[in-house]
Amino acid sequence: MVVVMQEGASAEAVDRAVARLEVMGFAVHRSIGANRTILGVVGTDVKGDPRLVETLEGVQEVVHISEPYKLASRAFRPSGTIIIVGDVRIGGDEVIVMAGPCSAESDEQVHATAGAVKRAGAKVLRGGAFKPRSSPYAFQGLGEDGLRMLRDGADAHNLKLVSEVMDASQIEVVGRYADIFQVGARNMQNFSLLRELGRARKPVLLKRGISATIEEWLLSAEYVLGGGNMDVILCERGIRTFETYTRNTLDISAIPIVKKLSHLPIFVDPSHGTGRRDKVAPMARAAVAAGADGLIIEVHVDPDRALSDGAQTMFPSQFDRLMAELRIIAPAIGRSICVEPVVRRGWGVQ
Amino acid sequence: MVVVMQEGASAEAVDRAVARLEVMGFAVHRSIGANRTILGVVGTDVKGDPRLVETLEGVQEVVHISEPYKLASRAFRPSGTIIIVGDVRIGGDEVIVMAGPCSAESDEQVHATAGAVKRAGAKVLRGGAFKPRSSPYAFQGLGEDGLRMLRDGADAHNLKLVSEVMDASQIEVVGRYADIFQVGARNMQNFSLLRELGRARKPVLLKRGISATIEEWLLSAEYVLGGGNMDVILCERGIRTFETYTRNTLDISAIPIVKKLSHLPIFVDPSHGTGRRDKVAPMARAAVAAGADGLIIEVHVDPDRALSDGAQTMFPSQFDRLMAELRIIAPAIGRSICVEPVVRRGWGVQ
Amino acid sequence: MVVVMQEGASAEAVDRAVARLEVMGFAVHRSIGANRTILGVVGTDVKGDPRLVETLEGVQEVVHISEPYKLASRAFRPSGTIIIVGDVRIGGDEVIVMAGPCSAESDEQVHATAGAVKRAGAKVLRGGAFKPRSSPYAFQGLGEDGLRMLRDGADAHNLKLVSEVMDASQIEVVGRYADIFQVGARNMQNFSLLRELGRARKPVLLKRGISATIEEWLLSAEYVLGGGNMDVILCERGIRTFETYTRNTLDISAIPIVKKLSHLPIFVDPSHGTGRRDKVAPMARAAVAAGADGLIIEVHVDPDRALSDGAQTMFPSQFDRLMAELRIIAPAIGRSICVEPVVRRGWGVQ
Amino acid sequence: MVVVMQEGASAEAVDRAVARLEVMGFAVHRSIGANRTILGVVGTDVKGDPRLVETLEGVQEVVHISEPYKLASRAFRPSGTIIIVGDVRIGGDEVIVMAGPCSAESDEQVHATAGAVKRAGAKVLRGGAFKPRSSPYAFQGLGEDGLRMLRDGADAHNLKLVSEVMDASQIEVVGRYADIFQVGARNMQNFSLLRELGRARKPVLLKRGISATIEEWLLSAEYVLGGGNMDVILCERGIRTFETYTRNTLDISAIPIVKKLSHLPIFVDPSHGTGRRDKVAPMARAAVAAGADGLIIEVHVDPDRALSDGAQTMFPSQFDRLMAELRIIAPAIGRSICVEPVVRRGWGVQ
Repeated sequence: MVVVMQEGASAEAVDRAVARLEVMGFAVHRSIGANRTILGVVGTDVKGDPRLVETLEGVQEVVHISEPYKLASRAFRPSGTIIIVGDVRIGGDEVIVMAGPCSAESDEQVHATAGAVKRAGAKVLRGGAFKPRSSPYAFQGLGEDGLRMLRDGADAHNLKLVSEVMDASQIEVVGRYADIFQVGARNMQNFSLLRELGRARKPVLLKRGISATIEEWLLSAEYVLGGGNMDVILCERGIRTFETYTRNTLDISAIPIVKKLSHLPIFVDPSHGTGRRDKVAPMARAAVAAGADGLIIEVHVDPDRALSDGAQTMFPSQFDRLMAELRIIAPAIGRSICVEPVVRRGWGVQ
Repeated sequence: MVVVMQEGASAEAVDRAVARLEVMGFAVHRSIGANRTILGVVGTDVKGDPRLVETLEGVQEVVHISEPYKLASRAFRPSGTIIIVGDVRIGGDEVIVMAGPCSAESDEQVHATAGAVKRAGAKVLRGGAFKPRSSPYAFQGLGEDGLRMLRDGADAHNLKLVSEVMDASQIEVVGRYADIFQVGARNMQNFSLLRELGRARKPVLLKRGISATIEEWLLSAEYVLGGGNMDVILCERGIRTFETYTRNTLDISAIPIVKKLSHLPIFVDPSHGTGRRDKVAPMARAAVAAGADGLIIEVHVDPDRALSDGAQTMFPSQFDRLMAELRIIAPAIGRSICVEPVVRRGWGVQ
Repeated sequence: MVVVMQEGASAEAVDRAVARLEVMGFAVHRSIGANRTILGVVGTDVKGDPRLVETLEGVQEVVHISEPYKLASRAFRPSGTIIIVGDVRIGGDEVIVMAGPCSAESDEQVHATAGAVKRAGAKVLRGGAFKPRSSPYAFQGLGEDGLRMLRDGADAHNLKLVSEVMDASQIEVVGRYADIFQVGARNMQNFSLLRELGRARKPVLLKRGISATIEEWLLSAEYVLGGGNMDVILCERGIRTFETYTRNTLDISAIPIVKKLSHLPIFVDPSHGTGRRDKVAPMARAAVAAGADGLIIEVHVDPDRALSDGAQTMFPSQFDRLMAELRIIAPAIGRSICVEPVVRRGWGVQ
Repeated sequence: MVVVMQEGASAEAVDRAVARLEVMGFAVHRSIGANRTILGVVGTDVKGDPRLVETLEGVQEVVHISEPYKLASRAFRPSGTIIIVGDVRIGGDEVIVMAGPCSAESDEQVHATAGAVKRAGAKVLRGGAFKPRSSPYAFQGLGEDGLRMLRDGADAHNLKLVSEVMDASQIEVVGRYADIFQVGARNMQNFSLLRELGRARKPVLLKRGISATIEEWLLSAEYVLGGGNMDVILCERGIRTFETYTRNTLDISAIPIVKKLSHLPIFVDPSHGTGRRDKVAPMARAAVAAGADGLIIEVHVDPDRALSDGAQTMFPSQFDRLMAELRIIAPAIGRSICVEPVVRRGWGVQ
């Protein structure tokens, strides 16, 4: 912490501020300039609200300099984290694509969509069984039935499964079916949930809240990491701005920033980030070009009949074309998007 | 819903859009202009994602016109809601002030603060026992011990008690001590929690999320109201903007807007809204002048030693002066801020 | 400026950073902590881009601490600025209200409106002759004819006149008629215009840009002050946020902040800040309660026929009621809103 | 325009609203639903403020549906605009890169930088001679001397030249040297300047204001187009959001949106959009992957000694590498980034 004293603050005011800081448990270094004094303040085991310093007489401004997160910081693991889920490596050279329907609706829908995304190169099936909805009057998901459909669909096509958990009480049931827990943007600061996931033994895909700063997002990751679960995947999905043309403004610049600040893999969700099907492909390409470790995309065999989020859901043919474009882009930054041989055969036959 | 077709959309495209809307369960009225056709679309019992309409060929824009909330709408109860908590009437002519420490820390701290705010005219004691903190390394509250201290302090000074509940699992214990449940800004869209509070038999003070639109806020209230609990108090506490001088930008204009859209009482929290002690009084005065039904303010007998939020917490003497100013302002809009005779006497004696 | 080195930055990296800063013309004080070094950096006569320091090896963060404005800072004139325009004192104990139509439309409209606002207690007539409009197809004002109407209307009712200047080329003509130049929000960073107004001999009412930080706003004032014109009135008129219910979010908290940072008077424009007539009065009351030095409000004798901004323009009767409410509120913060005796008589006769 | 009446608005209120709209010059179509009436309102030659309709009795909401811009709309020129500047075609298959220093500082600096960017594949030299600066105390550019340096540097390396014009009074002098006028973000709504540029006979690169909606941006383009100058290039350069880690949030999603709404070419400025050198390349790649028609990038042979914006300026070697990456990405979306043979040779020799 750096405490900037006002121009012309008296020596007594500076002494009082220093004394106060020392009482709070900090060590203080004075830097006396021509016009003002600056205090370098160090310490971690501190009593009381550090913002109190702002209210001391003669203090102009207090600047916090340590990142408040520790385990999420790149300094903690400079080489970056690779998360292993069976044969899928998240955070390595391969750009990993998770795809599937917004919600599980039926066995047929899940199986057909899982097959389509697998053939195009996805490695993980996404799909919701518990849905957080702004309105109590909207479709809320099929619950455990939906989870079973998703597990069956994933297994039939050799995919891993990611699915959302809305509440600590759902961790047990979602964990029985899914390989990766998803925490939605609205729950990014549901600290009770994050703490419980810190005790879980499966990776957590943590979406950024729509008005969360990158620092707050990394602090939320810290709740999970601090519980002993080091497998957190960050996922940018759009922030709230004044622009109303899209639902949210997908913050592509968060990708290089997170890469610098943290060792955790970063994904992008271009479906929720834009809210419009025709904007998903350009933003997915942009995310990979900017260095994202992966994507999570809504695809449905019949999006016009989807029970939720159909407007932002891709047709399988659109998803195929996007994956082909991404295979051109990824090498520009030393990445790849793999397709297994057997799958390519199946794709050729279609 | 109004569907605006593109200029020059073909008659066939219009027919297809109408057919599609009818399949989805809507009734459609066509309005054919010189340049384009507009469809008036009515219906409530709808299958699928209404945003899908945006992706139909020839559709330029879809505009939603019904407020998606029903029970929270002023139309539902045009005269406004008054919430009765013992002898305190929230939403009536009297501006109700809730005040107290950020967190319960000790019996002495709670009692002294409760006495001070009571003497100045507060009717409800505020204080946290479970604290949501962005950082896992910050003080997290005293739990049930804190609740007991707060209940004792409130009883000793004839105050009601409001305290935060962070998770459905805490409803039972908080409900044993508090008169009003508080839902924090970060939990405004914790739908599991809201749904459970809909079954509770005590009022809920629902803070606005820092990036929540007024519509989303009223939809969150709808979750509680829909469960049968009609006693919801809305509380504005600042929204996130580009301005960094204050922690948040207190949205005073939300007061007249909510008054028009909803029958629910609206409070303002100038402490969290500004994050700085010297800004609390001006914003509290502004809130009352703009028509707020009440305030919730952080006061502490020794804010410089508070374990959390000290920087935004008022001294009792500042709170006294603020209450005196508010007593001048309230009559300008036909409101009052009462003080019980016995209390005024006690105050004089000090 | 404070330069925070990374944890574990080498002594050589620190030396190189210090050497570089000294080449740029800064004096540097080192503060060596257990984990990292902090450099206190002082200097004003600097070559090159100070942000370059951020890119030096081993530097984690650079924090700027001097306010970049000098003449606008409260330190420059701690007692506050009072601007004298004839018998009107702006920035003193009296809250000054400027009111009138958005645009001058006709002699009748201007005279009737000027009379109405004078009777209610306004001291300055507002009205536009040159109008900045987002769309090239909207009404652009009457130009010099409009200025003449406004001057006549102001003189007939013993009011001062404020009117907008959009471009340096209009300063001469607007200056022939108006007592105070208004700079609109869109021109807050039109530095050519600001520089020219620095040479003008009349006060400047400088509106805050809709996305301007308070620091940028004070820097724009600095352009005018730096040219020798010390009579700048700041005017908050709403900032752009994610909330779409109002056109802008009026930032009431800017009032106490500006009061602390600067000696310049601060006004509020609740008409443009809300864009809706029924929100003007609550926000005007809030502004005065929060400590604003004055208001600028759109009033029109027949707002439903106004050529611009009618939706946010008050009827004279609404304005009368508002002024009566403000007279109750102002004393709460030691201010007044005066009415001259002769005017009150005229008002009674109506 | 669609006027949504309140639920239960009386037939008389509807009649009065219709009458009022007809007086204002609109044609009105009624759409009577079970719960409410919707009015489809058509007309262009309208008297008074259309927002007034919002204040009519019984009206709940007014929705504007025509884009208020005409000439900037894609409907006006569905195939898209290609702007010809000598042998450079902007808006065609080739992604055009403009590059150069923030400001002209010396003949040597300009020549060396121009040569470097030409060899890497840039087609247009960028460089400022008149600089808008938030602070009156910052470097303001070399004026006409700087323009001459830039013209010489561009000619020596067969590049076109883009340079900023801050004020209508500078159009003549900038036009004598530059091939393309640049309008900065702060001047996006300087309507006097835009109107004059509408009469100029050279293309205009119009940057988006940092808080401008896409609609406002297209309306500003409309000012230029309406004056007869159809050669407008739009340029996204970051919007202001709550996130403070970067100076602005580069809105990559604006690219596909503008492509849909307008026929005008869209460029991206990743240097100002991020403010940090190490973020420029990822965002430049993202912009091309999302479909941008071109980029404008700050490059300097010695950025650490640049007089302005050095922190966001690339070294020539970084720019080379970026251009190589872009050549891989562009084909993914059917675009190219050309290099003339002679230039490639020269590059090899270095």
